[in-house]
Amino acid sequence: MRIARFSIDGNVAFGAVEGEGPDGLVLDIIKGIPFADFELSGTKVPVSKVRLLPPVLPNKVVAFGRNYAEHAAELGHAIVDDQGRPDAPFAFFKPSTSVIGPGDPIAYPSFSNELHHEAELAVVIGRMCREVPRERVKDVILGYTCANDVTARDVQKREKQWARAKGFDSSCPLGPWVETDLDPSDLTIQCTVNGEQRQLGRTSQMIHSIEDLIVNITEAMTLLPGDVVLTGTPAGVGPLNVGDEVAVTIQGIGTLTNKVIKRD
Amino acid sequence: MRIARFSIDGNVAFGAVEGEGPDGLVLDIIKGIPFADFELSGTKVPVSKVRLLPPVLPNKVVAFGRNYAEHAAELGHAIVDDQGRPDAPFAFFKPSTSVIGPGDPIAYPSFSNELHHEAELAVVIGRMCREVPRERVKDVILGYTCANDVTARDVQKREKQWARAKGFDSSCPLGPWVETDLDPSDLTIQCTVNGEQRQLGRTSQMIHSIEDLIVNITEAMTLLPGDVVLTGTPAGVGPLNVGDEVAVTIQGIGTLTNKVIKRD
Repeated sequence: MRIARFSIDGNVAFGAVEGEGPDGLVLDIIKGIPFADFELSGTKVPVSKVRLLPPVLPNKVVAFGRNYAEHAAELGHAIVDDQGRPDAPFAFFKPSTSVIGPGDPIAYPSFSNELHHEAELAVVIGRMCREVPRERVKDVILGYTCANDVTARDVQKREKQWARAKGFDSSCPLGPWVETDLDPSDLTIQCTVNGEQRQLGRTSQMIHSIEDLIVNITEAMTLLPGDVVLTGTPAGVGPLNVGDEVAVTIQGIGTLTNKVIKRD
Repeated sequence: MRIARFSIDGNVAFGAVEGEGPDGLVLDIIKGIPFADFELSGTKVPVSKVRLLPPVLPNKVVAFGRNYAEHAAELGHAIVDDQGRPDAPFAFFKPSTSVIGPGDPIAYPSFSNELHHEAELAVVIGRMCREVPRERVKDVILGYTCANDVTARDVQKREKQWARAKGFDSSCPLGPWVETDLDPSDLTIQCTVNGEQRQLGRTSQMIHSIEDLIVNITEAMTLLPGDVVLTGTPAGVGPLNVGDEVAVTIQGIGTLTNKVIKRD
């Protein structure tokens, strides 16, 4: 099922996405919330009549760095230690205030001159969890969506921790919806800017699997329903400029599109 | 005014702390919330009859690294660049799930063998704000409390970003209350373990002032009411072991005490 969050006439609701094609999509409004028991109301509205919102409101977004070998290489980073063993994964946070939805503008921050796109598969957590055993990881996942880990690359290079470089307002587009029925192990993940392909990879190229990442982070901390885990970006990251339209497409999910604007 | 958050008979409330000494303190229950208009109800309960909670529930905690020269030196870090200019501040996040209150246990995480205390002055944000000009910083601050930026030092050394090292559950004790009438510019800040002094500094030793830090972070992102900014730790950080009682005392605020336990 594809679960979208949307506003219509000032009300916010979840809905199951049905139909095909940009003009044919309808939302069957959900009674209840997707993290607990819910049912479809049978009341349907065309997607074209609503504003899609971020599909979840995460308390926190946990993102993993350098999880695709070619991307690590393009930024000049080794991904094995001096004994040739793969580096352990490492995580950083993007705050709830960085999250925007499909179609929302990415506001170019005033403190950067080098904004980059990073297309990523986002895992949406369905239940409160900690110290999740590998074989139970699938039980804590509600589904998957597209993310853009928008990064102020110049600031990232200057500042030892990435709170500002990767946590500024609008640096975490999520959407367009959460796909709950999906095998995430080998999906194409693509990023285009103004229709031109910039990033192309497959989730099978991840160094650390989704299971590894969830085990790693929940060893340390509790994840809450709606929290999001970003799984790293494939090679091809590059600049975003004011006026650009950036689109992240993941096979089996859909396309997340955002335009870059000047910050007010 | 000192504003505490507490639970009594299963209800959660805010109260103004009045009186002196551990046995003489009473809470005048607040009608409304401290981030908007509120008044004192006149109904009073002794502090000894309630459970103090974290004085705020932050959406995010923004923490700054290496903001006291002697602490940076004890970890072997320079705090000036190769031209001798002070390094710019750099920020990281502690998630809401890391926050605990006064008296709550710090659960020693299973993935670390080297837990450290870091006593810090915490700034509590009173209103939603972004791009705060230096001269308006005082307007967005509700008050100040004590914090312990508990750190898995071994993990911090191993992992390039500090989400796990500084973001694990119970790694952010806050309290005992928010002091709203305080000049934070030159206060003693002290940490004891089992009654023995480990850290002692003065907030006047900060490299970057509270104004600098709030300007720096709000240049990038929106802060929300109840968000917390940690301002760095003075020299003297050191180990915490299971069974230890760690206390952070800041002049004009009070003492935040937590015991270290084995994680269940």
